[in-house]
Amino acid sequence: MHVDIANALADTASPGISRDALARLDDQVAAAHDRIERGIEGREHGYAALALPEDVDVDAIRETTAAFADTETLLNVGIGGSALGAATITDALANESSVDAYYLDNVDPEWITALLSEVDLASTTVNVVSRSGTTAETLANFLVVRDAMTSTGVDWTDRTFVTTGEEGPLRRLADRHGLPNLPQPEGVPGRFSALSTVGLAAASVCGHDLDALVAGASEQREKLGPSLHSNPGYAYGAIAYALDQRGASVNAMMPYAESLETFAEWFAQLWAESLGKDGLGQTPARALGATDQHSQLQLYRAGPRDKLVTLVRPTERDDHDIPESDAEELAYLEGTGLGELMDAEFDATEASLAAAGRPSVRVELDRVDERELGALLYAMEAACVLAGELYGVDTFVQPAVEWGKNAARGLLGEGDYDEADAVAAKDELIIE
Amino acid sequence: MHVDIANALADTASPGISRDALARLDDQVAAAHDRIERGIEGREHGYAALALPEDVDVDAIRETTAAFADTETLLNVGIGGSALGAATITDALANESSVDAYYLDNVDPEWITALLSEVDLASTTVNVVSRSGTTAETLANFLVVRDAMTSTGVDWTDRTFVTTGEEGPLRRLADRHGLPNLPQPEGVPGRFSALSTVGLAAASVCGHDLDALVAGASEQREKLGPSLHSNPGYAYGAIAYALDQRGASVNAMMPYAESLETFAEWFAQLWAESLGKDGLGQTPARALGATDQHSQLQLYRAGPRDKLVTLVRPTERDDHDIPESDAEELAYLEGTGLGELMDAEFDATEASLAAAGRPSVRVELDRVDERELGALLYAMEAACVLAGELYGVDTFVQPAVEWGKNAARGLLGEGDYDEADAVAAKDELIIE
Repeated sequence: MHVDIANALADTASPGISRDALARLDDQVAAAHDRIERGIEGREHGYAALALPEDVDVDAIRETTAAFADTETLLNVGIGGSALGAATITDALANESSVDAYYLDNVDPEWITALLSEVDLASTTVNVVSRSGTTAETLANFLVVRDAMTSTGVDWTDRTFVTTGEEGPLRRLADRHGLPNLPQPEGVPGRFSALSTVGLAAASVCGHDLDALVAGASEQREKLGPSLHSNPGYAYGAIAYALDQRGASVNAMMPYAESLETFAEWFAQLWAESLGKDGLGQTPARALGATDQHSQLQLYRAGPRDKLVTLVRPTERDDHDIPESDAEELAYLEGTGLGELMDAEFDATEASLAAAGRPSVRVELDRVDERELGALLYAMEAACVLAGELYGVDTFVQPAVEWGKNAARGLLGEGDYDEADAVAAKDELIIE
Repeated sequence: MHVDIANALADTASPGISRDALARLDDQVAAAHDRIERGIEGREHGYAALALPEDVDVDAIRETTAAFADTETLLNVGIGGSALGAATITDALANESSVDAYYLDNVDPEWITALLSEVDLASTTVNVVSRSGTTAETLANFLVVRDAMTSTGVDWTDRTFVTTGEEGPLRRLADRHGLPNLPQPEGVPGRFSALSTVGLAAASVCGHDLDALVAGASEQREKLGPSLHSNPGYAYGAIAYALDQRGASVNAMMPYAESLETFAEWFAQLWAESLGKDGLGQTPARALGATDQHSQLQLYRAGPRDKLVTLVRPTERDDHDIPESDAEELAYLEGTGLGELMDAEFDATEASLAAAGRPSVRVELDRVDERELGALLYAMEAACVLAGELYGVDTFVQPAVEWGKNAARGLLGEGDYDEADAVAAKDELIIE
């Protein structure tokens, strides 16, 4: 994979970074890299994520999932970081797998009921993922799935494994029922766990090549160095930070591949939860090419100058020829393919943003496969860690979500929480 | 449906609107309403969309789709406004229909190839939707679908109808092959066409109640009046505009229902393409509750004060009981349902934003059904038209996308376009 930052320079775009400022920024990157390298070497909290290519035990993952070789459907019960990394990989490679992977990352009752009625639970494997083992949505969904299996005569204990920490209710429940347990990595927050047991277990059940995923990540790990020119991850993180400083407070992540739509969601969590604190942080906006050219491009090109557009694509895809037509207006499509059309629109959109002086960054994978996905995930995590250093925030915490968790627990009567009282105290100004 | 704007007032939030400013804003709404009402009465371009509850001919739609009563799969071939309105309705009501509706709104070759290999084309109905009849993505996909049908021995002319204008290649092609044609409404831009033939044909094929959809919209039409307090649509549009003026340049649309996820995409197009011009426009960000509490909430609550969060939910859903557990830590979930949990999280998230002084608006539907969807779609269109008047932009055009379309045509050799030359002229600064 590689990135092209030319269209984020002030030569082309406003906001944009001048070449002089880029040189000064590179000194900051060098200092940040020292800090990051120390964190990786010391396996410090969060930084340990960037050591995963070395630390992750793929054999343990393969051994645990080997017991579920007959899987036709995977239900991954987890939310946030316990879903998005795995979903990014299995959705990107779905055409390569005979296993249908579903992510129960919401507690919508109508959605869950419909999903459970559609799948054959006898050939379904359940992976329950929660570091703390206390995540309300995950445990509620697990209880529902377990009940559905039991009521259709399936022994859920034969079809379930867990990915959780050493402690907590989920781990105790697993031990009590003799469920296989994949340990969660130490010091790796959920949103940085795609290349650990959390993200790779689902990929293993779906039959994907874990070694290639890790190899792609290792390449990026080896490239980390004291310059934004040393690797695509640092280049992307530094440019996104610099553009935010110059007014691009929104980062539109726009892959030109349906298979990478979930990647944009994964990126949105990585970026928002890691950098969104102390009044700082660039807002990720998920988009999809070419579709959103007919939805968001008007705003990106003619709206406020507050956006960086990140265009992602594979340079190689299996194309689908566009057949001959009987309308002369369409003659220009003959002899081309859908992929050629999509690539022409990618190039046209990038150029149309540049022509309007709007900044964009191009991220290209050789193709959507395990190796390139491993590289992309690692590079974006490195980008985020670098950006966190440049912003000076604590990249690896998410304190602002605790308030709402307590309020919800209080509302459900788990105990006394002042936060729950605030819900009742709400004013209303209703228009019907 | 109703909206609650209390948490967008300065009493609670920053940015927020003071009650005095709200009164002054209401004078602007009254003036804007006069303009809008004139536009509706005169069926002026764009404003005509708000006359659809009166103008749309649901019988014509039902007659055309009656010929496809045996449909098991619907392929809606259209992009942008030719997909999102219909998709919002059929995705929201998917659990009520035996027809699987797919929206071919992208030209990703691997995705299209996989999709066509999965569906039974003999029981598939194709609706090709393009006002101009020249949309490259739509016509390319149509040629591919037509070819797939022919090569599996299906007579595509028996399985296809079109929704297009009076002119253009698609109309001529339809006439040549005797395909049923649903006319596109006059003066209604694609992103405002959900309640016309464009959005309702798919709903009709899927067996949904068109009369109820239109009735819900009509209720909102009748409520339009010279005050933001007269109807939920104006209230929402006025508040979103006022908050943007005060710094909430991002509007996070966050439904708490999987069935409304596509609605957030529809809204994102409506908002971005209508208001994103002249350097103005609020950036829509798609989110989903409760999932994104574990992804975006940290940023919404602790990041820059540049966001309005729009929380949408049905007040009634079919709940799914959470079964008893064998872990005491989960005892608090017993006797509740997934829907109760989701609603507790909705209330908790709303309160957590308010506690941090972050603005939000609550939009509630009685339930997700045809009537309430018709009301929601109409109200949001009215909100957008009102906001356009307040911004003073031309809500119904999207000139900024033409440049890229010309560039793409040039790259595909349709003709000579200067825009295509700009693509070749691009600088590169690649980091590998």
